Parts: sequence; C-alpha cells; structure tokens
Amino acid sequence: MKKVNIHITLKEGVLDPQGKAVQDSLNTLGYQEVKGVRVGKFMELEVEDGVDVDKQVSEICEKLLANPVIEDYEYKVVEEVIQ
Amino acid sequence: MKKVNIHITLKEGVLDPQGKAVQDSLNTLGYQEVKGVRVGKFMELEVEDGVDVDKQVSEICEKLLANPVIEDYEYKVVEEVIQ
Repeated sequence: MKKVNIHITLKEGVLDPQGKAVQDSLNTLGYQEVKGVRVGKFMELEVEDGVDVDKQVSEICEKLLANPVIEDYEYKVVEEVIQ
Repeated sequence: MKKVNIHITLKEGVLDPQGKAVQDSLNTLGYQEVKGVRVGKFMELEVEDGVDVDKQVSEICEKLLANPVIEDYEYKVVEEVIQ
C-alpha cells in the first residue's frame, strides 16, 4: 500500500473568494499582518501496490479531483504503508 | 513578506465522510486500487515581516482555522516573498 499526498490549488490569477473571506475575517479579528490567503485542498490517498501509481494518480487528479481549467494539482508518493 | 503553508487534517480516528464519499466515487468509477481517502485543507498565507510568524500563525491555526478538538494542523514557513 502506498500513501500519496495530493495538493489542489487554484491557478494563479483565479479569484479565490474563500481565501478572501478568510483573510478579511483574520484582519477583522486583529491579525492585520495577514496580507493574503489562498485556500486549497489536501488529500491523502492509499493506493494498492501492483499498479502504476504515477499513472493512476495523475489520471484521477486530472479527471476527477481537480478542475484543470482553474486548478493545479501536485502529488507526492510519501510512504509505503506496510500492511 | 513571508509565505506560510498550512495543512489542516482530521485527527486519526475521526470519521471523514467527505473522504469516504470521494473514495466510493473513485471505486465506482473504476479506480478500485484506491483503498483510503482523507480530505483536508491547505492554506497559503502571506504574512507581513516584523511579526513573530510562528507565534501568530500557531495562534491563528489554534483559534480560527482549525478545530483542535477534531483537527490537527501543521505549518511551514516556505519562503520570503520579496516585495
């Protein structure tokens, strides 16, 4: 079993209303030093051995987890989970 | 300006219905090799210089961004953004 960490972030230039809301809230609550917030997704996948992890995970990200029009994804195989 | 990456994940043992839904969908769509999915949040903060980044960011995470009852957070100061 392999563990894969996936980061999905909005492409640069794409407006991030969720991040803006978080930033505004932080500023209002007294954290004026926060000058920018971008919110993304983080997923941890466990993938069975015996498959081409790179191929499968990039296909999953491209087709299903990320919206390639507005989002970028990045993944990293982080550990072999011993069963 | 400093850039800080924050990961917020559910604590181990806490049920993740969103992750379960993603996993079920992936399995249904033909990716049976995916045996587990956990979904978390990923945030990129830009913090002004001249403040104690560690103190501020851990306070922000603890009080506002994460729910310490069910979530863990981790942050890393990744780069000095040159203005």
